[in-house]
Amino acid sequence: MGEKGFSYEAAGVSIERGEKSVEMMRSAVARTHGSEVIGASGGFAGLYALAGYEEPVLATTIDGVGTKVMVANALGRHASLGADIVNHCANDVLAAGARPHIFLDYIASGRLDPEAVAETVRGAAEACEKLGVALVGGETAEMPGVYSGGEFDIVGVCVGASERSAVVDGENVRPGDAIVGLASSGLHTNGYTLARKVVMDAGISYDDSPDGLGSTVGGAYLAPHRAYVEEISVLRNEVEVRGMAHITGGGLPGNLPRSLGGCGARLDVSSWEEPPVFDLIRSLGNIPDDEMRRVFNLGVGFCVVVAEEDFEKAVGILSGAGCTAWRIGAVAEEAGVSFE
Amino acid sequence: MGEKGFSYEAAGVSIERGEKSVEMMRSAVARTHGSEVIGASGGFAGLYALAGYEEPVLATTIDGVGTKVMVANALGRHASLGADIVNHCANDVLAAGARPHIFLDYIASGRLDPEAVAETVRGAAEACEKLGVALVGGETAEMPGVYSGGEFDIVGVCVGASERSAVVDGENVRPGDAIVGLASSGLHTNGYTLARKVVMDAGISYDDSPDGLGSTVGGAYLAPHRAYVEEISVLRNEVEVRGMAHITGGGLPGNLPRSLGGCGARLDVSSWEEPPVFDLIRSLGNIPDDEMRRVFNLGVGFCVVVAEEDFEKAVGILSGAGCTAWRIGAVAEEAGVSFE
Repeated sequence: MGEKGFSYEAAGVSIERGEKSVEMMRSAVARTHGSEVIGASGGFAGLYALAGYEEPVLATTIDGVGTKVMVANALGRHASLGADIVNHCANDVLAAGARPHIFLDYIASGRLDPEAVAETVRGAAEACEKLGVALVGGETAEMPGVYSGGEFDIVGVCVGASERSAVVDGENVRPGDAIVGLASSGLHTNGYTLARKVVMDAGISYDDSPDGLGSTVGGAYLAPHRAYVEEISVLRNEVEVRGMAHITGGGLPGNLPRSLGGCGARLDVSSWEEPPVFDLIRSLGNIPDDEMRRVFNLGVGFCVVVAEEDFEKAVGILSGAGCTAWRIGAVAEEAGVSFE
Repeated sequence: MGEKGFSYEAAGVSIERGEKSVEMMRSAVARTHGSEVIGASGGFAGLYALAGYEEPVLATTIDGVGTKVMVANALGRHASLGADIVNHCANDVLAAGARPHIFLDYIASGRLDPEAVAETVRGAAEACEKLGVALVGGETAEMPGVYSGGEFDIVGVCVGASERSAVVDGENVRPGDAIVGLASSGLHTNGYTLARKVVMDAGISYDDSPDGLGSTVGGAYLAPHRAYVEEISVLRNEVEVRGMAHITGGGLPGNLPRSLGGCGARLDVSSWEEPPVFDLIRSLGNIPDDEMRRVFNLGVGFCVVVAEEDFEKAVGILSGAGCTAWRIGAVAEEAGVSFE
């Protein structure tokens, strides 16, 4: 436990300010606790009864939201960071074929702002509730000297489970299969060092609303990372999904191959719609296409690989579930991702 | 994923220096993978087949090592930080009555030192191997501006499991039960802000060897957090354990009550042996007993509650398993912890 750390159950003791927001955080966390959560309060570990699997495989992931926290800090808006970290982690678990069950977070700073912590955790709890995920543990640490000024870092962990036979690892992917891209909500949680730099270098404020963006720069940058749990669950009930990729740091070239069982991909860049925030970054920073593709998701937050004859059905099901989707390319025999 | 993040499977791509130590880290991580770990490489989540439970309850915990990282950085010795974070998390899972199965870590800095990261992860992997825990995932993030200078933070997550009927929550604890304390190896991972301050204020160097300490100050401060997994497993095969507490931040008064199902404790401070590092801190900083007890474990790293008639047997089994243990007090009807 970090110095002056407090866990949720002890938050009332250690937090001197912001009692109302701490109370709201506490009740938001409690709403994520169904009957699976056993005596979570006061224990040394969060306890969760895992039922319904014959041969359970646990899928676990740990991640941060990168320097998106610095944008949130600059704007004093922390609510969406909670959704960012939950949805990022849940999508990683999802990409392995598992259903997310449990979430934990860690928030550390040189000097903890209880209001910002409570707002972040409340956002995380609300995102968990939407996904049917239990928030069973959290740790906050105050470490003067490790963190700069008022900056803080947030780390999330998701534990999911899958029936062993339902794990998706790309083994059944074949050349000629269709790659379906699911629309992202913006930058998600990647590329913020570059995204922040181009705005700073151009002397633009987060409060500015450049033509065509449809929002302030800050608003576009803080758009929460989208979760695909519900859409993918509906899709997998109807269509055989052979591979799944969560498009995070590394972009499509860095992540798509991880889902293709050794194959590669040919993508048609005209096949999907790029949110305007990416063109703003591209033109402000004069960033080459190649770098844009390796740093950002460019509008595709998640990919599924299906048989070519299933792609129309898949796109229809995803659209029906509220997620814009496109056939963005095909699986190729040779490794690597090419853009046409 | 943090900016310029790399995951273990991609470490060779992103790390330009320290290739030998990265290779050693990689093989140490691989040695933690038994047949339960499924296709961990390249996937978006670590996969672990959880077998052998009829009614599995997952026990999960997330934690950091606090500002102990600053001592390690000051001395350029990172190997024991890995054991610190693994053993800290494993003990939390253990205190809930569960067996630790899976570990994940997160390391972030303003500027990652690949050698320090590799040394830390290798230490974590070696600690996992000793406990029979699989290290299935890790994330490293470089976040200039969030972290100060070369400082870094390390976060660990442990996922364990217990048969539902074997969860230990203090429900069966009764006044008059014996409290058995298991020896700590030193500060473990708590109290470092105070421990560092007294040394700094006194103008003492980490390389100094004060009388009676038996090592340098730096050596005593970096003694790795001890795990109690094996000892407790042996004990639970022979004796009914009614409550367990991992003594971390908050010391005995902050942690012991969490294991007592609403009861309190009366402890006899003369009943156990305090390692000399605590008296060094006490006398250097002129710290009152009350504060010492709330900040440090004072030599007791873990507690178990057993029936009074079982305490001699328990102490004998623990000693036989290589862990010094003492009857440090008894469960009391009234809440709170008193020291006599």
